[in-house]
Amino acid sequence: MSRKLIRDAVHGDIEIGALEVELMDTPEFQRLRGIKQLGTAYLVFPSAMHTRFEHSLGTLWMAHRLVQAVRRTHSVSTDDDRLIRIAALLHDITHIPFGHTLEDERRVLPRHDKDELRTNHFFRQSTVGRILEREGITDGILRVLEGRCGFMSDIAAGAISADLLDYLRRDTYFCGLSQNYDARIFESFAVVDDRLVFNLEKHGMLRRDALSELVNLLRIRYTLSERVYFHHTKIASGAMISKAVELAMREGLRPEDLRTLKDETLFFILAERFSRQPVIAHLTRRL
Amino acid sequence: MSRKLIRDAVHGDIEIGALEVELMDTPEFQRLRGIKQLGTAYLVFPSAMHTRFEHSLGTLWMAHRLVQAVRRTHSVSTDDDRLIRIAALLHDITHIPFGHTLEDERRVLPRHDKDELRTNHFFRQSTVGRILEREGITDGILRVLEGRCGFMSDIAAGAISADLLDYLRRDTYFCGLSQNYDARIFESFAVVDDRLVFNLEKHGMLRRDALSELVNLLRIRYTLSERVYFHHTKIASGAMISKAVELAMREGLRPEDLRTLKDETLFFILAERFSRQPVIAHLTRRL
Amino acid sequence: MSRKLIRDAVHGDIEIGALEVELMDTPEFQRLRGIKQLGTAYLVFPSAMHTRFEHSLGTLWMAHRLVQAVRRTHSVSTDDDRLIRIAALLHDITHIPFGHTLEDERRVLPRHDKDELRTNHFFRQSTVGRILEREGITDGILRVLEGRCGFMSDIAAGAISADLLDYLRRDTYFCGLSQNYDARIFESFAVVDDRLVFNLEKHGMLRRDALSELVNLLRIRYTLSERVYFHHTKIASGAMISKAVELAMREGLRPEDLRTLKDETLFFILAERFSRQPVIAHLTRRL
Amino acid sequence: MSRKLIRDAVHGDIEIGALEVELMDTPEFQRLRGIKQLGTAYLVFPSAMHTRFEHSLGTLWMAHRLVQAVRRTHSVSTDDDRLIRIAALLHDITHIPFGHTLEDERRVLPRHDKDELRTNHFFRQSTVGRILEREGITDGILRVLEGRCGFMSDIAAGAISADLLDYLRRDTYFCGLSQNYDARIFESFAVVDDRLVFNLEKHGMLRRDALSELVNLLRIRYTLSERVYFHHTKIASGAMISKAVELAMREGLRPEDLRTLKDETLFFILAERFSRQPVIAHLTRRL
Repeated sequence: MSRKLIRDAVHGDIEIGALEVELMDTPEFQRLRGIKQLGTAYLVFPSAMHTRFEHSLGTLWMAHRLVQAVRRTHSVSTDDDRLIRIAALLHDITHIPFGHTLEDERRVLPRHDKDELRTNHFFRQSTVGRILEREGITDGILRVLEGRCGFMSDIAAGAISADLLDYLRRDTYFCGLSQNYDARIFESFAVVDDRLVFNLEKHGMLRRDALSELVNLLRIRYTLSERVYFHHTKIASGAMISKAVELAMREGLRPEDLRTLKDETLFFILAERFSRQPVIAHLTRRL
Repeated sequence: MSRKLIRDAVHGDIEIGALEVELMDTPEFQRLRGIKQLGTAYLVFPSAMHTRFEHSLGTLWMAHRLVQAVRRTHSVSTDDDRLIRIAALLHDITHIPFGHTLEDERRVLPRHDKDELRTNHFFRQSTVGRILEREGITDGILRVLEGRCGFMSDIAAGAISADLLDYLRRDTYFCGLSQNYDARIFESFAVVDDRLVFNLEKHGMLRRDALSELVNLLRIRYTLSERVYFHHTKIASGAMISKAVELAMREGLRPEDLRTLKDETLFFILAERFSRQPVIAHLTRRL
Repeated sequence: MSRKLIRDAVHGDIEIGALEVELMDTPEFQRLRGIKQLGTAYLVFPSAMHTRFEHSLGTLWMAHRLVQAVRRTHSVSTDDDRLIRIAALLHDITHIPFGHTLEDERRVLPRHDKDELRTNHFFRQSTVGRILEREGITDGILRVLEGRCGFMSDIAAGAISADLLDYLRRDTYFCGLSQNYDARIFESFAVVDDRLVFNLEKHGMLRRDALSELVNLLRIRYTLSERVYFHHTKIASGAMISKAVELAMREGLRPEDLRTLKDETLFFILAERFSRQPVIAHLTRRL
Repeated sequence: MSRKLIRDAVHGDIEIGALEVELMDTPEFQRLRGIKQLGTAYLVFPSAMHTRFEHSLGTLWMAHRLVQAVRRTHSVSTDDDRLIRIAALLHDITHIPFGHTLEDERRVLPRHDKDELRTNHFFRQSTVGRILEREGITDGILRVLEGRCGFMSDIAAGAISADLLDYLRRDTYFCGLSQNYDARIFESFAVVDDRLVFNLEKHGMLRRDALSELVNLLRIRYTLSERVYFHHTKIASGAMISKAVELAMREGLRPEDLRTLKDETLFFILAERFSRQPVIAHLTRRL
């Protein structure tokens, strides 16, 4: 497998294989370069321009680090490693512009990972779908992402997972918040009964340093919520976007149109095609 | 003057005044959020998503640091300080998507700072223009940016200027290259005969450390040229964009249309409006 | 006042004045280069070799930053600024090798700031004492350090003070723990009723970000306690040193001898002069 | 082999094996904690208190990274890996206080690696010597350190070696100079004809990025020489120490006495035992 090094601002060099490069080169994955990780947070933190593209790459890399970590005490086959890495790489492929806002905050649309039509589109019909089918891993990847593969699912899509380990570092780096977790945290991960666990014990004793590092991880998560994810400017601008999309859907915008749009082209279409609708016109002028 | 702190990933907190906030809130300035600092460099360095917006803010801040530095030996009035800061903030306001490519590499358009129509548009007719006029500083700002104001022009728009001091740090930060210049470099700047100079002398002796720091600055510039600015993938994709824009201009795209477009919406328009032209269709499919 | 820049690994360039340089050049202050900030913590964190010398310099610098911060809303005279800075610089001048161990953990000796003989020695009789007397600031400095000067004492020697702001950054930097507080923390300090306060309010509302930053400060303090200050290896080796010093004092070592010793020369003297005492010989062989 | 993690301020966690821990726990190796890496450079850079102990540990780690790097194209046996690591760990074991000053600048003593008596003492007669003999690797280690083992010698003791890769990062970190080489530099190392080479070619083409990174490495070396290693204050104080040691040797100080001394205890002995000699008394008062 030919090996490629990609330089990431957060993790340094990331090593990826030929199949992973092929998946990244699809139109669906490249589209993620236009979907910002933090939506309109840039209104408050102007350098938060990072996208789901880099985050997906970083999640693959954190998944790699977790596999390395658990391999000290648990064997992981090459095939399983491949599934975990690719699931991590593709965990956000179904995202649409301002997804969290449209799905979670306003519920204009079903959640990206609960929307069967979207899942089918991205994993079975698109260029990505064709590559996965050729490799015979479509169902394997979906099972990992749907949480049905024990520790493999935990690494790629769990609560304390590769996803979290990437975005905590990435969001703080691009917002300019001086917070980080300690690299030794990887030492605490292990596989027990087919689940990824964070090991707080050593020889029957509580490891206080592991516990305080876990608390630190959650604290960074909290700090980001407080200062970034739920900043009132972000929430208010998100509500305006949701309202505009909702109204545009009544005027003919279809959910499937959102699958090919990026943040900027969604704004552009709202302003160009739906500006006869006076509320949309009003809202988009203020974005 | 009310004071606002903006958190930047590169410089930390940046302090800006009420007039500067007002200029940043104009549609022309906000548009810079859609114009990436490094064009298509993200194809090679995926985290290089930073835009001319943050760079402009950072240039204001580096101008502030230079004014602080030269004030140790040279007095700078509050009015001149204001002109320098605002000139630094607005130095890239005339930029269009993929400007360096269209102007410098392919010469499809005149350079952003040599194009009188564009200068007029952004500094005299737009919202920015109205604010500058109200404050009576339009001509002052233009003189600073055109290099006619001695050290003030040197700080805002010279060869070793606030612009350079920002983009060296910013481009390395977002590309993930571990390079930086030493913060003590500001100690070496002074004003002599109304020009900003880099002082290599102390009590009649060569300051070797200042010289090696200056060389280091130029080395970082060189490293960025070699690995980022002139990376073959960036150059090749830039040539494709230029070709597509050139062809679209024959089909009706006007130079003034580019003044309101962003990177993504330029691509979108090329693909939507000019795809009957088969070469444009071919080129945009590959971007 | 001639100005000197000293490069510190933690804070970068620190600016000091002529009187401060003169105080630093005394034998008593230079002696601090031989007294490690963290005692025997190097047995666990090998790079924790930093001393009370750099910490004192850094505390001066943090005091300077706090004065700058409170000056936004409270006027501080040049004379008071000078007292605060010098008090911060000298706050640890009475320290002896393994002071915290001998004074706090084992109580072999009175605490460095409660020991009148030592205070007299360092602030009235030594070279430092003569300089302070010449400047007529001896009593002023002592009053600041003894907590009798309101906000000035709070900055130089309070619970959340220049001391804390330096050692949290310094201890994490030299131990290699990836923890830091946010630079914006200085924005929250103010002087109210002659006391330094950490302002958690803005326009009558709780500032959650200031609160979480304060919590973060205390968390870093806790993490250092858990992993460094009270690491069992550090505590055990400290107990051995205390025992050896206690026994040596029965054999003739005088408290005033400790005033000129450094960490290494204390070990050397214990091994050379008191090794007939078999317990001392045994203990020092193991250090 | 039981595995231990040691947290280093420069490289983060360093993984060492049981035999390496045993060697580090000897009196000869622990003595390195008292020998500063940069001699009297702390007079100019107060935080440069790091010692040959941490540097030796870091050199082992850089040797490990180089072995990992060359293993991509060249097989390295477990035994050879062990020899390289231990040679790197012990490469400075024969150092005495202010070694570079006494040996290279003033030639009061033969160089630490050319002094057969010292080599014999540290590698054959001491606790370290007994451990190496028990493991049957004494001659192997000496051959590596004497440059007689091709790429193994190059990694542990060559011109561009683990030693350099550690001290460039360590000296800049502790002096507070914002310089670093790029982590990708390890990609350029390979073994060709049993020598460690820095590969500037790929498919018959010059790799400009590898070349500029090599130049950067040499530039950091130069910057350190200019600002730290040959700073006039360091050179002048070094000359005073050399003079004092030279005079003390005429009065009875023996070269073998230096083998057990540390920086601080050397000063102490000069001041205590040789202060009848008026020049020594004069010199040591000024240190």
